[in-house]
Amino acid sequence: MTPKRRANFERLLKPRSIAFIGGRDATIAVREARRRGFAGQMWAVNPRRTDLKGVPCVPCIADLPEAPDAVYLAIPAGGIVAALGELAEMGVGGVVCFSAGFKETGDAAAEQALIEATGDMALIGPNCYGLINYIDNAALWSFEHGGWSPGYGAAIVTQSGMFSSDITMSARSLPLAYMVSAGNQAVLGLEDFLDAFADDPAVRAIGLHIEGLQDIPAFERAALKAIERGVAVVALKTGSSSIGAALTVSHTGSLSGSDALYEALFARTGVISVTSPAQFLETLKYLCVVGAPKGPSVAGFTCSGGGATMLADHAEKIGLTFSAVRATEHAALVDLLPDIATVSNPLDYTTPIWGQAELTYPVFVKAMDAVGAEAAVLVQDYPAEGLDASKIYYQNDASAFAQAACDRGIPAAICATLPENLDKVTRRYLISIGVAPMQGIHETLNAMQSAGIWAARRNRILATRPEPLIAGTPPGSLGMLTEDAGKAWLAERGFTVPSGRTTTAQKAEVAAKKIGYPVALKMMSTRLAHKSEAGAVALGIADGAALKQALDQMNTAVTAYDKQAVSDSYLIEAMSPTPVAEMIVTLRNDPQFGAALVLGSGGVLTELVGDATTVLLPSTQDDIASTLKSLKIFHLLEGFRGRPRADINKVVTVLNDLCDAFLQAREKVSEIEINPMFVYADHVVAVDALIHDNCT
Amino acid sequence: MTPKRRANFERLLKPRSIAFIGGRDATIAVREARRRGFAGQMWAVNPRRTDLKGVPCVPCIADLPEAPDAVYLAIPAGGIVAALGELAEMGVGGVVCFSAGFKETGDAAAEQALIEATGDMALIGPNCYGLINYIDNAALWSFEHGGWSPGYGAAIVTQSGMFSSDITMSARSLPLAYMVSAGNQAVLGLEDFLDAFADDPAVRAIGLHIEGLQDIPAFERAALKAIERGVAVVALKTGSSSIGAALTVSHTGSLSGSDALYEALFARTGVISVTSPAQFLETLKYLCVVGAPKGPSVAGFTCSGGGATMLADHAEKIGLTFSAVRATEHAALVDLLPDIATVSNPLDYTTPIWGQAELTYPVFVKAMDAVGAEAAVLVQDYPAEGLDASKIYYQNDASAFAQAACDRGIPAAICATLPENLDKVTRRYLISIGVAPMQGIHETLNAMQSAGIWAARRNRILATRPEPLIAGTPPGSLGMLTEDAGKAWLAERGFTVPSGRTTTAQKAEVAAKKIGYPVALKMMSTRLAHKSEAGAVALGIADGAALKQALDQMNTAVTAYDKQAVSDSYLIEAMSPTPVAEMIVTLRNDPQFGAALVLGSGGVLTELVGDATTVLLPSTQDDIASTLKSLKIFHLLEGFRGRPRADINKVVTVLNDLCDAFLQAREKVSEIEINPMFVYADHVVAVDALIHDNCT
Repeated sequence: MTPKRRANFERLLKPRSIAFIGGRDATIAVREARRRGFAGQMWAVNPRRTDLKGVPCVPCIADLPEAPDAVYLAIPAGGIVAALGELAEMGVGGVVCFSAGFKETGDAAAEQALIEATGDMALIGPNCYGLINYIDNAALWSFEHGGWSPGYGAAIVTQSGMFSSDITMSARSLPLAYMVSAGNQAVLGLEDFLDAFADDPAVRAIGLHIEGLQDIPAFERAALKAIERGVAVVALKTGSSSIGAALTVSHTGSLSGSDALYEALFARTGVISVTSPAQFLETLKYLCVVGAPKGPSVAGFTCSGGGATMLADHAEKIGLTFSAVRATEHAALVDLLPDIATVSNPLDYTTPIWGQAELTYPVFVKAMDAVGAEAAVLVQDYPAEGLDASKIYYQNDASAFAQAACDRGIPAAICATLPENLDKVTRRYLISIGVAPMQGIHETLNAMQSAGIWAARRNRILATRPEPLIAGTPPGSLGMLTEDAGKAWLAERGFTVPSGRTTTAQKAEVAAKKIGYPVALKMMSTRLAHKSEAGAVALGIADGAALKQALDQMNTAVTAYDKQAVSDSYLIEAMSPTPVAEMIVTLRNDPQFGAALVLGSGGVLTELVGDATTVLLPSTQDDIASTLKSLKIFHLLEGFRGRPRADINKVVTVLNDLCDAFLQAREKVSEIEINPMFVYADHVVAVDALIHDNCT
Repeated sequence: MTPKRRANFERLLKPRSIAFIGGRDATIAVREARRRGFAGQMWAVNPRRTDLKGVPCVPCIADLPEAPDAVYLAIPAGGIVAALGELAEMGVGGVVCFSAGFKETGDAAAEQALIEATGDMALIGPNCYGLINYIDNAALWSFEHGGWSPGYGAAIVTQSGMFSSDITMSARSLPLAYMVSAGNQAVLGLEDFLDAFADDPAVRAIGLHIEGLQDIPAFERAALKAIERGVAVVALKTGSSSIGAALTVSHTGSLSGSDALYEALFARTGVISVTSPAQFLETLKYLCVVGAPKGPSVAGFTCSGGGATMLADHAEKIGLTFSAVRATEHAALVDLLPDIATVSNPLDYTTPIWGQAELTYPVFVKAMDAVGAEAAVLVQDYPAEGLDASKIYYQNDASAFAQAACDRGIPAAICATLPENLDKVTRRYLISIGVAPMQGIHETLNAMQSAGIWAARRNRILATRPEPLIAGTPPGSLGMLTEDAGKAWLAERGFTVPSGRTTTAQKAEVAAKKIGYPVALKMMSTRLAHKSEAGAVALGIADGAALKQALDQMNTAVTAYDKQAVSDSYLIEAMSPTPVAEMIVTLRNDPQFGAALVLGSGGVLTELVGDATTVLLPSTQDDIASTLKSLKIFHLLEGFRGRPRADINKVVTVLNDLCDAFLQAREKVSEIEINPMFVYADHVVAVDALIHDNCT
């Protein structure tokens, strides 16, 4: 965003005046601005109406008494460009363009004209629900809306208007600061909103519903600014399925991109990734109300054995730690608890002391101390309205729990097993005493876990800020190097390959003898990307007779596979001994995300196990090391069950050098795939390598 | 359950008279019976009160005018046995025993005395909330309760009283038939309730919250009866974590058992397994209101591109099929839809026709036909109260959708993206027109998927009813056969093992020559369960010199590992060539579940990939075949990427024979582990085998 547009965005976000331009839809927007309590100046523009819901109309834009900070624009698509030209000329701050009929219908030219007409104004949309400001009470919004704010909250940006509406209607008491339905993102994109909201003191967390980003380096910059400022970002990425990806193109014209690349981007920038709408809201709520815990140790409380078990089960599944009660504190807890209670974490403090704050408060405090808690959670399903004679018992324990967590200075959550078993009055009360009112036992633990991981990742990022991502390049037409050429390229850059020679069928035996049996034989052709399937690979050839036979068979097999692929160029290599582990290493250029490294289990495991992780480049040795550690194959690298182990540092160094070489050669080399890469105790070998060059 | 107890259970479940025995707690139960609308005879027993909430008290049980059908018993634990004796003597039908202080506190003797005193009565508890009958309006329940029934519904049995209470308080409009909080299950266990509810015509689905089952064969019988009668069973199994398992022992005294065995039991008996409380209720609701679809093809509808994408994403993740629109029907759909809509499934029918039933009904019907839908789902998040001027639009589309699904005879669900965005009035209305009101987009798709899988599994089970499970045997003290003895046992039963000889160090070379180099060498000792880690295995020995060296090294290594394990008995075997795949095969006796077969990826993959599935025995060849197919390693067995393939039928036959052999030898052999089992194109070989025998 240019500084001028940025200033205009501030006017749009916190307007002193709004002009509503249009008919029925603009009338609704007037109603919603009033519902939000907008107290500034309102104007209306409509040539055929005297007023929009009581706001007197002027017939055309030129008749507006002065340039409004914000304009709600809902006229037929055909008139939008002219209107925007007038508004820009007049010095309007920003526009919410509700009207549809641009890129999402395939009309890229119309969208381009809209962009140009917008000039320096801030524009949300087109094809969007608009903007709600819950802090300063302003709205440019196209439908009835709900939602509230205690003076701070989450800023949420969605790529689905309906979903943003669903969120404002939700019964979760999520504190809200701003809601933006971004529509086509013709002018202002998710990256821009992220950048702006990261600076806003009322914003405690940012929620992004992403179908596709448009500017990855800008997203990285904005996300890193947010993490520096301590504002957590939660992303709900949709459009990951094949049908879903096609749908996102049709409804907002955005490309949804590969999930693995998005996950790599989120990991790099400390963005919390969630997959369900409810989890999105609960994670934001936890972060807004109590922030992130300092460490991973959690104290859990229930007044039900079943609830304690459910806490423990899900925590174990996601790796959240309910630390054991220290042996030295055991007796003190026994003294505070009823006889029927069992000292444990999570702790079922049992009904004999239920609802008696003077008895439960000491238990809460002592148990928090006894497990070294850095966060705490209490399970309470409040009774439904009209069935709640016992509610005071719940409230007493809630207050005691809140006080205990406050005394110990740790974030506290009260969670209902079933999301709806926490009424609005209770939710608001809990927020007022600094406790996160969480809905759903799994969602709560997931949110606590994410918040903890976020805090740890933030510390790492602050210690070593990632380098800026390199912009992607549009895909060129790909050529392929033969394996021997690819290996030569690797060898020149210091990467070990098997000793080998390229030769003809006639000279094969001489070459094999020089290398020493047993050998591997592969036919070289740029048409053989899948040599094994073509029959163009023979392994473990023991002697000259076997070599002759292999040459004949290979010729027959490749002829059957693809006659044009047959060549008289063969690579003969020494057989590599059994390694500690086989890996796959891929480096490639994505048009959006730039350069990326993919590491995973190699050989047959690649597709069998689906064990692969993507890292965006440039990356550090630490990034590569932690990626290796995240893989299942890492257990083999470490020396699984008494087997030999690899020198992990050596592997990291080799991979890091390879990344550097790839980045330097990016103009020419578009993709490198080494599969398998054999990892040994003290070195690695590229047993097979496929390099694509860029023919454009 | 004996026929006598079964008849008594019917009296307890549908009582004409209830006696409440106790003080404050019994008073609450009186209130709850009235809340439920109980219209039968009520009596009260208390020596120190004139009445319990207006029900006149008699001082002792003997003063009751006649034997009540049901008794709510809430007196101190010390008086329970005597009271039960009197009640049994008098001819009472059944008892809800609220009082705690039995097995859950470690007092097994008190619980045994309670069981004996109960005689033929039906008893729920002790240490439970009790029983609610929503069909006939009766309750013996210990706290305020909610919930409703349209005249049919789910029967839910929980092992957590608090959880059963949370469920009755939930805002989901789940139709309920019965709610049972089973407590300690001293007399009536989950298996008994399942058996009884499977026969009840008001019960359309059964929900079980299971911490641990007590009688696996009885559970199998009851679950198979339910599936025959077309009543789906949904299980929420908790206590799977290590902490959770410990907690379940402390709070109801039940063993939670291994998750893999429970999953095997559920798969065998067609029980739907869920992991979250909300999913438990949503799955039951779908099954109760609309039943299971006939096939897997689903038509999805939204009036939001974002919603359609979320449907598609989650469906792809769980393998639910939104079939493509048939090309021949494409044009007809285009004609019915607004210009801005894109023909797809899920279908965003877009706002221009939103809320206009005369325009959306034809779209719903045509799209259902065009995708060959066997189930349908429409996403609608209803606006919140007070913000719902647009609600009529939603209602119009809901009615049109319901009519379309009804006309096509397929189960229909309307689901809210966020669980709470579907109000009570709408939920009840949808149920009245035969549409499942579902809450949460993921939960809905999961429920639909589960219902479809249940229907398919039901057909398979009806075609081939599983044989009764064999009761487990208590664990004896385990002995171990040496590998050569274990392999001899296998070979006698027709299982191929490598050709080999047991010999001494001195005679090793002669033996190796007879077998032919290269050979494998292993030291035989019953103390060497983990030979690789002990250094007691040497592979690929090429000649006599290498053999000598290997013998020396092995002696040194094993001496260092465990001096007492060193022996002069060695197994020398031919080396097995590289197989198509390495598997692990385990057969074992579980004290609760009886005999079980575990199949999985073998060798290093066993722990690396965690690819293993458990099947309870006796099993059919089909069971074994479908278990093999469910494994990741199956891709290798099929001939992965042009590699050789295995004869799957042969593998199945060999495994089936092994299961038979194990079942026949169960008295003596307690566990067989073959790892790795090498699978070749036409045969399998037990490369390593460990057999435990039963020393008891």
